[in-house]
Amino acid sequence: MLKLFFAAGACSLASHIALEEAGATYETERVDLSKGQQRSPEYLRVNPEGRVPALVTDRGVLTQSPAILAFIAQSFPEAGLAPLDDPFAFADMQAFNVWLTSHVHIAYAHVFRPARFGDEAAAEAMKVKALETLSESFARVAERLGDGRAWVHGGFTISDPYLYVFERWAGRVGVALPEAAQAHMRRLDARPATRRALQAEGLTPV
Amino acid sequence: MLKLFFAAGACSLASHIALEEAGATYETERVDLSKGQQRSPEYLRVNPEGRVPALVTDRGVLTQSPAILAFIAQSFPEAGLAPLDDPFAFADMQAFNVWLTSHVHIAYAHVFRPARFGDEAAAEAMKVKALETLSESFARVAERLGDGRAWVHGGFTISDPYLYVFERWAGRVGVALPEAAQAHMRRLDARPATRRALQAEGLTPV
Repeated sequence: MLKLFFAAGACSLASHIALEEAGATYETERVDLSKGQQRSPEYLRVNPEGRVPALVTDRGVLTQSPAILAFIAQSFPEAGLAPLDDPFAFADMQAFNVWLTSHVHIAYAHVFRPARFGDEAAAEAMKVKALETLSESFARVAERLGDGRAWVHGGFTISDPYLYVFERWAGRVGVALPEAAQAHMRRLDARPATRRALQAEGLTPV
Repeated sequence: MLKLFFAAGACSLASHIALEEAGATYETERVDLSKGQQRSPEYLRVNPEGRVPALVTDRGVLTQSPAILAFIAQSFPEAGLAPLDDPFAFADMQAFNVWLTSHVHIAYAHVFRPARFGDEAAAEAMKVKALETLSESFARVAERLGDGRAWVHGGFTISDPYLYVFERWAGRVGVALPEAAQAHMRRLDARPATRRALQAEGLTPV
């Protein structure tokens, strides 16, 4: 039985939605970041990095959203969440997901968790730069979506719930989402799988 | 025909080695970062992000090392560069590669390219933190490798040349590599595929 460790509204929400889209049978366990539960001895035994998401499988624990998302897509091929039989399209999708991790998520982390990257005196300069990076990143996303395509890669894939998480966060840091990204976020909000994952995490559509 | 855009010794070296390991037929084109060629109009037409690596394929351009490396492994299955028929093992490998991108490479970027993340005043604090992160990261790598395993995941995979790049960089920022990581780097150095890629980039073993 799969078990997803998540924090409400964190990037683990993408894996949570993907499990719902896949029709997977799984359990969840909430990690309360506000109480520092990600640093508890119990959780560090699951994921020594002290981060969410972690997906416990019969074979061991998986971490890192792009890897977990691809695992869900490959484990439930009938759900059609990734172009599994097309190495180019799969790599193109993974490139987008890795960009979200290493560029977009990292920019947010400079705002939310500056102590990971510098000291208190550096926090303001890092925040200024991170907000620039986020604005540029969403402009790039909007360009992809702006030609009327509903989803990042044309058809719905695991990239869509992953992007959705970062679209949800934009308001918290005062970054204005371009219209095409707002519309993408609303399309995610409207999907039953998203609704179920949000409800399970105690969240509401944006 | 595949074409790899690389900068000498940059993270593109991992893809370069992987192409050699795969026995691929491919061309290369050097991007001289010291001359800012990654920002030239010609290169930005290849990769609008202005980063290496970029792998040009018949279908389009791929970016992001974990995605390119997986594409190479999937395109040349006979080379055995990844556990392609085992979604759990594949995801575990990809989790490691995404961690290298978003944790280890990002830490180096705070030292080499602080302007991406803050201003001049913040650079020193970011460097201090980044060197801590790198030391912790290599300690974690050494723990994985320390039980006598030659390669990150037991058998040789695309994670090994990718890790090798970051092991090579450690000396440049004054981070001491644990013995197990040094031994891993030397094992990569000794492989004919690594030798060929190094020579093509005008580099030498460490």
